[in-house]
Amino acid sequence: MDYYKESLKMHEEYRGKMEVASKVPVKNKDDLSTAYTPGVAEPCRKINENPEDVYKYTNKSNTVAVISDGSAVLGLGNIGGLASIPVMDGKSLLFKEFAGIDAIPICLETQDVEEIVMIAKNIAPTLGGINLEDIAAPRCFEIERKLQEQVDIPVFHDDQHGTAVVVTAAIFNSLKIVGKKMEDLKVVISGAGAAGAAIAKMLLSVGAGDVIVCDRIGPLAKNDDRLTPAKEEIARITNHNLVNGTLADALEGADVFIGVSAPRIVTEEMVASMADDAIVLPMSNPEPEIMPDLAKKAGARVVGTGRSDFPNQINNVLAFPGIFKGALAARAKRITEDMKIAAARALADIINEEELCEEYIIPSAFHPGVADAIAEAVAAAWKE
Amino acid sequence: MDYYKESLKMHEEYRGKMEVASKVPVKNKDDLSTAYTPGVAEPCRKINENPEDVYKYTNKSNTVAVISDGSAVLGLGNIGGLASIPVMDGKSLLFKEFAGIDAIPICLETQDVEEIVMIAKNIAPTLGGINLEDIAAPRCFEIERKLQEQVDIPVFHDDQHGTAVVVTAAIFNSLKIVGKKMEDLKVVISGAGAAGAAIAKMLLSVGAGDVIVCDRIGPLAKNDDRLTPAKEEIARITNHNLVNGTLADALEGADVFIGVSAPRIVTEEMVASMADDAIVLPMSNPEPEIMPDLAKKAGARVVGTGRSDFPNQINNVLAFPGIFKGALAARAKRITEDMKIAAARALADIINEEELCEEYIIPSAFHPGVADAIAEAVAAAWKE
Repeated sequence: MDYYKESLKMHEEYRGKMEVASKVPVKNKDDLSTAYTPGVAEPCRKINENPEDVYKYTNKSNTVAVISDGSAVLGLGNIGGLASIPVMDGKSLLFKEFAGIDAIPICLETQDVEEIVMIAKNIAPTLGGINLEDIAAPRCFEIERKLQEQVDIPVFHDDQHGTAVVVTAAIFNSLKIVGKKMEDLKVVISGAGAAGAAIAKMLLSVGAGDVIVCDRIGPLAKNDDRLTPAKEEIARITNHNLVNGTLADALEGADVFIGVSAPRIVTEEMVASMADDAIVLPMSNPEPEIMPDLAKKAGARVVGTGRSDFPNQINNVLAFPGIFKGALAARAKRITEDMKIAAARALADIINEEELCEEYIIPSAFHPGVADAIAEAVAAAWKE
Repeated sequence: MDYYKESLKMHEEYRGKMEVASKVPVKNKDDLSTAYTPGVAEPCRKINENPEDVYKYTNKSNTVAVISDGSAVLGLGNIGGLASIPVMDGKSLLFKEFAGIDAIPICLETQDVEEIVMIAKNIAPTLGGINLEDIAAPRCFEIERKLQEQVDIPVFHDDQHGTAVVVTAAIFNSLKIVGKKMEDLKVVISGAGAAGAAIAKMLLSVGAGDVIVCDRIGPLAKNDDRLTPAKEEIARITNHNLVNGTLADALEGADVFIGVSAPRIVTEEMVASMADDAIVLPMSNPEPEIMPDLAKKAGARVVGTGRSDFPNQINNVLAFPGIFKGALAARAKRITEDMKIAAARALADIINEEELCEEYIIPSAFHPGVADAIAEAVAAAWKE
C-alpha cells in the first residue's frame, strides 16, 4: 500500500481529518436562549466568581492543544507551522481515537522561544493540557521549561517524553527476556536531539548503569569541548567512562542500542560487537538505523523499530493518549518523572508473562485498554 | 423557562457545548499509516512546496477562531478570558449549526493590544478567518485594524460589524414600510461603544442623511472637547448640525432610534417627540432601552429589540454565519464594506413584499436559507 499516495487522496477528499462538532441541540429559540444568550451568562458568572468552576461548565478538562512551530517535523525537518498542519491535525486525530480527548492543532508562524511561550500561556484558559510537538532541540527544552513555569496545566513535549516512555517500556520487557538487570546495562543512544536526550534521562532515572549518547560525530563526553549547552547537559550525566571515538567504538560491548537518528548508520559488524543478548531498537523513520533482519543476523536478541511492518513497533501513540488522559483526570498541574515511569511500567505490563517473547515486547497501538491502563497509573502517580 | 438555570444545567451535563470529532477512520495499522506517519508526510511536503495547497489538504478553508479577551462579555463587562469561555464556545456552536463552519474558541489571558495581535497573527496558519468577540472599545478597533494588516484572512469583530449588518437590514426593510428614504433620515444611536460606532459608519455608508451618536452624557459633536480619540472619530463624520444636550434633545424629530446602551433610558415622552412613523430599535439586552409596548404606545411605527420573546429580534446570528461562509468560500482576504452591505441587503431581501409588515422586518434565526443567501451575496461582492 502506497501510504503517501493514499494519504494525499484522503487529505484532499476530507480536507483535513478533524472537525468541530456540537454536543447540544440548537433547533429552536429555547435551545438558542439556553446554549447562548441570555442563558450562557450564568455559567460565565459562576466561573467569574469561582475560577475552578471552569472545569465544571466547560470542556477545559478534556481539551489539549497540539502546539508546533514546524521546526522538526517527522523526517522533513524545518518546514514551518503551515506545512506541519497535516501532522498536528493527525495528532489530534490520535488523541480523539485513542483517548477520547478533544485536541486542537495550533500551528505557529513564529519560531521564537519567547513568543511561543507567550502565545501558549495566553491561550491556556480553554486548555486542560499542552502537547508540544515537532519543535527542534534545543529550543524545545527551553520552551517546555519556561511554559511549564507559567501555567498550571501539564506541558508535555511528546517527541521527548512520549518516546522516552515507550522506549523505557520496551526495555523493561526486553530485560525480562534477556535476563539482565537495569543497573548492569550499558546503553548506547544514537541521536542527541530531543528524543535522545529524553530517553537518556529517563533510562537513568529508572536506574540504567551507564548511558552513552552519540551525535553525528560520536559519543558525548563531559571532557569534550565541542558541545553545545544542551549536549553538555547530557554529557554531564552520561558516559561515565568518557568513551570517545565513533558510534562503533561506543557500541562495543553495549547491551542496548537505541536509534533516534538517521537511516542505515549501524552495520552488522557494529551489532556483532555488542554484548550477548543485545537489545537493538533502531527507530529512525521510515528507514531504521539498521534493518531488523540484518540486526538479528548479526546477533541481536530483541529488535524493535518505529515501523508498523515489523514486530515490536515503538510508537508514541502507545503513550501520549493515556498519559494525557490520566493527567487530565487527576487534574495534574504537570507531568512528573514518577508519572512517566508509571506510564512506562503500565505499558510494559499490558503484556503478560505468557505472551512476552522476543517478537512481542510492546503491544500494538490497537491493543485494547492501553490508554486506560496508562491513564490509571499516571493519575495514581500524580495523586501520590 | 428559566434560561439561566437551564443553561447552567446544560453546561454542567455536557461540559461545554463543542467537541472535536474525526472525519476519517482509524481502525487498523493501514488507517494509522495513511492518516498519520508515514503517509501524512506527503501532504506536508506538498504544502511546503506550494503554501496554497494548505487549502487543498487541510481544513483551513472551513476553520475560524473565535478570539476574545473577555473584556466586554454580554452584559457582564470585563470578566476576562477564562469566564468568557461559555460564550465563545456558544459562538462556535452557532458557527457550526448555522453555517457548518468549524470554529475554535480562543479565550485569552492577556488584554494587551500588541500581545493579542501577535498571538492571533501567529496562530493564523490553521485558520480561514478570525472572529473577534466581546473585546472592549476602543481596544477592539486597534486590534482589528492592526491584525488585518498582518494577516491575509478576514478579521471580523462581530460586535461591531455583525450588529451593524443586522441593524442595517432592519432599517432597509423598515423604510419600505414607513415609505421614507435613507438620505432623508435622522438617526439617533444611543451607545458609543463598538456596536454604536459600527452602526453609525455603516448607515452613513449606505447613505443615511444624518446620524447622531450619544454616549452616557449626550450627543457626540465635533466641537465637543470632552471626547476620547475613538469618539472624536465618530463625531467627525456624524451630527452635522452639532446637536448637543441630552439623548432626549437628540431624539426630537428623529426618524430612527437605535439603542446599544443601557436598560430603560428612553421614555415614552422621548419616543413621542420623534418624527411620525418612527423606527425604534432598543437592543440593550436583556432589558431594552424602552419596552416594545411602551414604544408602540408612544407612537413608534416599527419596533425591534434584541430579545427573542418580542417580534423583530435583531440578532447577530442572522449575519455572521453567512458572512463568514461567503468570505471563506470566496477565499476573501478581508471583509470589505461592500461585502457587509451585500450581506445586509441579502438579509433584508429574505422577507418578500407580501410578508413584510411592522411585526416582521427581519427573519428569525431559524428561517431556512438565511446563511446561504448571505454567503452567496458576500462571496459575489468579494469577487467584484
